Amino acid sequence: MTAEIISVGTELLLGNILNTNAQYLSRELAALGITVQRESTIGDSHDRLADFVNEAKQRCDLLVFTGGLGPTADDLTKETVAGCYGDTLAFDPEEWQKIVDFFTRTGRKTTPNNRKQAMVPVNGHKIINNHGTAPGAWFEQDGHCAVLMPGVPHEMKAMWEESVCPLLLARQNCTLHSITLRVLGGESDIEYRVRHLLENANPTAAIYCKTGECEIRITARAETDSSAEKMCRAYATKFYDLLGDAVYDEDVTGLEETLVHTLKEKGLTIATAESCTGGMIAQRLTNVSGASEVFGFGFVTYWEQAKAKMIGVDPAAIAKYNVVSAPVAAQMALGAAEAAGADIAVSVTGLAGPNGGDAVRPVGTVYLGAACGETVYVKKLFVSRPDRALVRARAAQAALELALRLAQGKVPADTQALAKSARHDAAALTALDSTFLKG
Amino acid sequence: MTAEIISVGTELLLGNILNTNAQYLSRELAALGITVQRESTIGDSHDRLADFVNEAKQRCDLLVFTGGLGPTADDLTKETVAGCYGDTLAFDPEEWQKIVDFFTRTGRKTTPNNRKQAMVPVNGHKIINNHGTAPGAWFEQDGHCAVLMPGVPHEMKAMWEESVCPLLLARQNCTLHSITLRVLGGESDIEYRVRHLLENANPTAAIYCKTGECEIRITARAETDSSAEKMCRAYATKFYDLLGDAVYDEDVTGLEETLVHTLKEKGLTIATAESCTGGMIAQRLTNVSGASEVFGFGFVTYWEQAKAKMIGVDPAAIAKYNVVSAPVAAQMALGAAEAAGADIAVSVTGLAGPNGGDAVRPVGTVYLGAACGETVYVKKLFVSRPDRALVRARAAQAALELALRLAQGKVPADTQALAKSARHDAAALTALDSTFLKG
Repeated sequence: MTAEIISVGTELLLGNILNTNAQYLSRELAALGITVQRESTIGDSHDRLADFVNEAKQRCDLLVFTGGLGPTADDLTKETVAGCYGDTLAFDPEEWQKIVDFFTRTGRKTTPNNRKQAMVPVNGHKIINNHGTAPGAWFEQDGHCAVLMPGVPHEMKAMWEESVCPLLLARQNCTLHSITLRVLGGESDIEYRVRHLLENANPTAAIYCKTGECEIRITARAETDSSAEKMCRAYATKFYDLLGDAVYDEDVTGLEETLVHTLKEKGLTIATAESCTGGMIAQRLTNVSGASEVFGFGFVTYWEQAKAKMIGVDPAAIAKYNVVSAPVAAQMALGAAEAAGADIAVSVTGLAGPNGGDAVRPVGTVYLGAACGETVYVKKLFVSRPDRALVRARAAQAALELALRLAQGKVPADTQALAKSARHDAAALTALDSTFLKG
Repeated sequence: MTAEIISVGTELLLGNILNTNAQYLSRELAALGITVQRESTIGDSHDRLADFVNEAKQRCDLLVFTGGLGPTADDLTKETVAGCYGDTLAFDPEEWQKIVDFFTRTGRKTTPNNRKQAMVPVNGHKIINNHGTAPGAWFEQDGHCAVLMPGVPHEMKAMWEESVCPLLLARQNCTLHSITLRVLGGESDIEYRVRHLLENANPTAAIYCKTGECEIRITARAETDSSAEKMCRAYATKFYDLLGDAVYDEDVTGLEETLVHTLKEKGLTIATAESCTGGMIAQRLTNVSGASEVFGFGFVTYWEQAKAKMIGVDPAAIAKYNVVSAPVAAQMALGAAEAAGADIAVSVTGLAGPNGGDAVRPVGTVYLGAACGETVYVKKLFVSRPDRALVRARAAQAALELALRLAQGKVPADTQALAKSARHDAAALTALDSTFLKG
């Protein structure tokens, strides 16, 4: 089955809105085994849209539209597409009542314009919108179909999930099951290792890359739920075999969610001590609903005196080793764990740039610490592109990864350990410092 | 002049990548007074692309392509478009040397494939890429033009700014000047107030909305820089007249940048005390390069005991008024200012949801405090959509806005003041609390 995605709206052509709908629908259609051949954005012009639809209809089986279902004169997708599919629209009293109720509930009055939204296909059928006033529409002629959804992303996504996707599955007489693997590591490396698994008809597998990690979405189609699930699971095993424990979780929104869940399971708490990330790690942890069960104290110690006052970093250590150094990262983590009474504490001190840095510590140099029990583990990160936002994002990601591994009882190989009891021991701190400066 | 934007790449049709290039180019072309009539995404197929180009070429004056300039067999934009514009490609030794140098510098070897990238138009001309190995291309036939740029966003943007935009301006014999106004407030309200200014041929004005604020970009075309600048400034005045001091700055990346600059100018420092925003305010402040001149201490006090221990909130006040209350917000701000020795401190305590809340304090209820000198100012925010990310983002934005107004010496009308000396005064705290509970 082939499809095209059409976004309708002059505001898109002016660049006023980023088109996230097209990406969402591309992924969803790919997961259904439907090949998207073209995506187009067309302005709010009846004639241009009609010309386009008459051509596009011949090129593929299904046209998927978003936008242009509103009440204003500019909104003409439904009328135009109806014409192209030999259909007409009729007033639907049930939809009209829903619109009137919605306006009443929000303390407003309908205008004559709003009646437009209650017009539905005569030969085709309407699609219920549970999250807004504009119903969707389905048109069909000679085996060519068109589906129309609203342009507002959350309404469109809900209509897709609740009605359109089930409808397309029913027509193919099948169900869908997905697993999303979250994988730590660099994009090109991960993609290279799994590339031969990414070109499969069913299950499909697609990779989406983010800072310091990738998402691999596996989707199977089958006649029953349970066989789709089995196919998905079997295909996922192939990824696990190749990627090992770089796959850190399934079906989560990010590393912070897995970390919060893992800490909760193990009955552990975490604290943060941040310099160059400036609150980003705490912010990511508290993105997770329920984070308060494991996280209570975050220290943003941007100044040296904050590091000393809030989490007991020794100013002499800063003077001797530099504020961006392994001994300072170690003292920050130990001090934060102590001040918060937390089981684990992560720390970050680094140079995010764009200014500053020297030959020994160029912009992009970051030290991370993680205190856990009687030990603190330190690692060094270097981000070669001197991009402030990137350095900060990579540092926060690395800190969350380090915390997760320790919460799982694994000590990453690229860390150096220092005993908590040695936190003010000059010889031990100097040894720690020089390990990294040599490296 | 009319244009179409064409993104080439099967990975876009699969939804693996969000197409941000199309939005960027839409805005830029609109600013040049060029009408974008359609945007399309086409896969890596010679025949489909050629069919498309042959039609699109007749529909408008300029086709703007991104993607498909790489070294692999899939990358065929240049060859295909050359054919459609009656042009051919020839090997360019200068480009080839640049590619060889680039590979040598990065410790790699070129492959025969890479020679493809050194092929440039014979009748048209190449466009220098200072940020990657793929040069762009310009084709022209019977007054119809095509410009080809790489798909990697930072390479594309650089090539647009450095070469393509100047080229288009030179053809129109004009220069461009832009001013971006940053405006606080809700989208529909701002858009409604300035709508008649948004439909102008020159200067153009476009509005882009974000959480709690909008960006209005004004762009003028004229023969000289100075007249374009004057036109821009005159048009900006119309927006100032309508929006007053809701316009908080020009040409900045966000509220945090203006706040950091304002604090710097006034010689003031700031601290943060965050509960439901969990580090988001600190993180935004430290996004700004140079934030360390004004920000040193951030307290993420997610637990009640953290509020007590780190910034001296009275546990009895939490028990009496609730942790999400005006008295607690006031004590958080005053305590943070004191602990940090800062001139201004902002605090946030609220219910981000999705769980929790009751009739008095539903999810979305947030109290903000800002200590400044001998007074703390408190305000209440309610976000009706119970969306955790939205509540947090709106709260952080409101806190930055409150801090900015106080740094500017303005006390917002929707705040209630409490004297620092009354921070433990039961009668004063109860009075503060009840002001908000009534409201």
